[in-house]
Amino acid sequence: MEKVFASIITIGDELLIGQVIDTNSSWMAQELNKMGILVKRRVAVGDDQDAIREALDEESKRSSLILITGGLGPTADDITKPLLCKYFGGTMVIHQPTLDHVTHIFEKILKRPMIERNTKQAEVPDVCTVLKNEQGTAPGMLFKKDGKIFVAFPGVPHEMKWLMTHQFLPMIPELFETGFIEHKTLLVAGIGEAFLAEMLQDFEEALPAHCKLAYLPNFGMVRLRLTAFGSDKPVLQKELNALFQSLKEKVKEFLVIDEDIPMELAVGRLLQQKGKTLATAESCTGGYIAHLITSYPGSSAYFTGSVVSYDNAIKQRILHVSPETLETMGAVSEATVKQMARSVLEIMQTDYAIAVSGIMGPDGGTPEKPVGMVWVAVANKEKVITKQFQFRFDRRRNIELTSTHALNLLRVFLVENG
Amino acid sequence: MEKVFASIITIGDELLIGQVIDTNSSWMAQELNKMGILVKRRVAVGDDQDAIREALDEESKRSSLILITGGLGPTADDITKPLLCKYFGGTMVIHQPTLDHVTHIFEKILKRPMIERNTKQAEVPDVCTVLKNEQGTAPGMLFKKDGKIFVAFPGVPHEMKWLMTHQFLPMIPELFETGFIEHKTLLVAGIGEAFLAEMLQDFEEALPAHCKLAYLPNFGMVRLRLTAFGSDKPVLQKELNALFQSLKEKVKEFLVIDEDIPMELAVGRLLQQKGKTLATAESCTGGYIAHLITSYPGSSAYFTGSVVSYDNAIKQRILHVSPETLETMGAVSEATVKQMARSVLEIMQTDYAIAVSGIMGPDGGTPEKPVGMVWVAVANKEKVITKQFQFRFDRRRNIELTSTHALNLLRVFLVENG
Repeated sequence: MEKVFASIITIGDELLIGQVIDTNSSWMAQELNKMGILVKRRVAVGDDQDAIREALDEESKRSSLILITGGLGPTADDITKPLLCKYFGGTMVIHQPTLDHVTHIFEKILKRPMIERNTKQAEVPDVCTVLKNEQGTAPGMLFKKDGKIFVAFPGVPHEMKWLMTHQFLPMIPELFETGFIEHKTLLVAGIGEAFLAEMLQDFEEALPAHCKLAYLPNFGMVRLRLTAFGSDKPVLQKELNALFQSLKEKVKEFLVIDEDIPMELAVGRLLQQKGKTLATAESCTGGYIAHLITSYPGSSAYFTGSVVSYDNAIKQRILHVSPETLETMGAVSEATVKQMARSVLEIMQTDYAIAVSGIMGPDGGTPEKPVGMVWVAVANKEKVITKQFQFRFDRRRNIELTSTHALNLLRVFLVENG
Repeated sequence: MEKVFASIITIGDELLIGQVIDTNSSWMAQELNKMGILVKRRVAVGDDQDAIREALDEESKRSSLILITGGLGPTADDITKPLLCKYFGGTMVIHQPTLDHVTHIFEKILKRPMIERNTKQAEVPDVCTVLKNEQGTAPGMLFKKDGKIFVAFPGVPHEMKWLMTHQFLPMIPELFETGFIEHKTLLVAGIGEAFLAEMLQDFEEALPAHCKLAYLPNFGMVRLRLTAFGSDKPVLQKELNALFQSLKEKVKEFLVIDEDIPMELAVGRLLQQKGKTLATAESCTGGYIAHLITSYPGSSAYFTGSVVSYDNAIKQRILHVSPETLETMGAVSEATVKQMARSVLEIMQTDYAIAVSGIMGPDGGTPEKPVGMVWVAVANKEKVITKQFQFRFDRRRNIELTSTHALNLLRVFLVENG
């Protein structure tokens, strides 16, 4: 078994001027990790020949696998392919299967004439192994040099993901003899990072050398990630499971989920297990809770819909919040979210409902109801519970936090009243 | 004027195993850019002393400003602060104003007792300038070494942003004599990247050496970014404006927005200018369009709400789609979205409505209605228009694309029927 290290190089000026957030690297790192490959560094450089060459030189000194994304598109600001060709000492040649594929895309799918730039997509250095890209026109390319493996992917996320999943990852067992990395993650709420660390000090100190505990603050909660590295997968898993069990025991008072899944999925699974349905009535979150839930396939089994009542008139007309409540208590009040939750439960004929109303900022706060103040209600046919939150962040994060905490309130309700 | 280069080093194992997407670097790069500083490289390393030290050594050879995020929290997996102390030859001392601030947070805001780990947050190397962090307990730190500037920020995004905005960015004019970088961006739709490049070849070749055009594919559209670098800001802006005007002229047939703003904001501004209101009826997008719109403060001026009718029963009961339509044409049909749009317009009493219904995948497709097929309707009181789309991506991207293209359909409708 060798410990295999990888570096990820992302290419593109858009990364350096901040116009684009790099989501590719995280995804790639996750996938490599599952195969037992540790990412050692991630480097982003601009569309600049020297910078790319330097990064290739440096990272290949560190890692035995170098993954490259970006710079393979058909336009003039893409300089990566010719550079790779030169770097690996090749000559550009037309790759016939790729040309056939690109021609097919233009003739049959896009129904647009092909021009020379499109044909160029089918040119590859003759020193690479071509990875066919069924999701786009730019193929992946695998190079070998001085015992190191280099793989170049297009930067478009769904194309890169398809190429990784269907072409490159299946090649890994032939290319490397990797060990195994296993992670187990849980989420706790209601305890600060420092207190948690205090509480887990003995546990952490007693961990064997090949195991590691990490604290990841997350939406006002903390994720705890336990990692172990080794060569014998069953032994490793057994050991990790035992440690994880003991960790769960230690934090049980604060435990939210003992899996690395988002809150919306944890709630969805609970609903599905119980055969129950959910609807939401959202004011300040503007549909974000509904969006989170419906991001996952299969959510139609337990989610019927939402009334986004951004305007108070909608709260009255559709969700039947009484004008008196809105006038005396205001839209951000316990009474309002209670009525919203009960109404949406009835309108949507579901088993459970979530209702939220709050002030997300930056404007609209008052001394009594400052920015970040939120009321959440969770209801079933028998019962409504409410909770008030006070978040202290910017609009976007207040929306995210409200959504996650509203879902968590439902989760607790489901566990206790299921 | 000196051309100032920066490197951004992000620290944390969570970045390397892909558990967290790095949004900090993009934001930092954007802000530095506005101040005339070019980010040359972004490097992510794990919680590993040697890796951090190496990155500091290497990046300080390249750049005169090195920004560091992450690794400043109160838990044991954070090793950055002691390392920085050693790297810059300092000794750890208690920073009294920070200790007072941390004490205040615990006593007055969190109302929790402080423990030793929290006190440690107030320890800083005696060789740094402390940047007070009003958003959290870990202060920022500025170091100087061999003429290079190093600044360390906590990794929590809103704390880093606050420290950058209120503490570090205002110091830049004193620290560096920077030039100016100006960008202007527009968005085009309905033309492929390669065709666009063909069309703009002459324009690109005629650009002066200090100007650059980049093609950024974006949600099935392409953003074009024009960049110029120079020392005289008024001259530079004048030149860039002229070039941008000529670029707009060249692509006018395909032009969507001549600003670097997201579609939902462009639509919001149009509605606000016209004093009109909008509601949405969303099936397959599950509230994502409502979320996009309400992500921006002030959206309550033009957005009243949404009916997310994920379940067909809701389409019938609340949006009055006829059972016959659902049975004969199906939920994903032109007739359904027309009825959804008309109903939500009436229910929400708005001037405009968007309705969407489609199959986002991975399951649920049929030969007649494959995954990615979407019907969109846009209506005002006089008129309903519809359009069918066929996207070819994964669920998440299909939702994003549907939302952006639905908003664009409304944008065109607003321009033509406003």
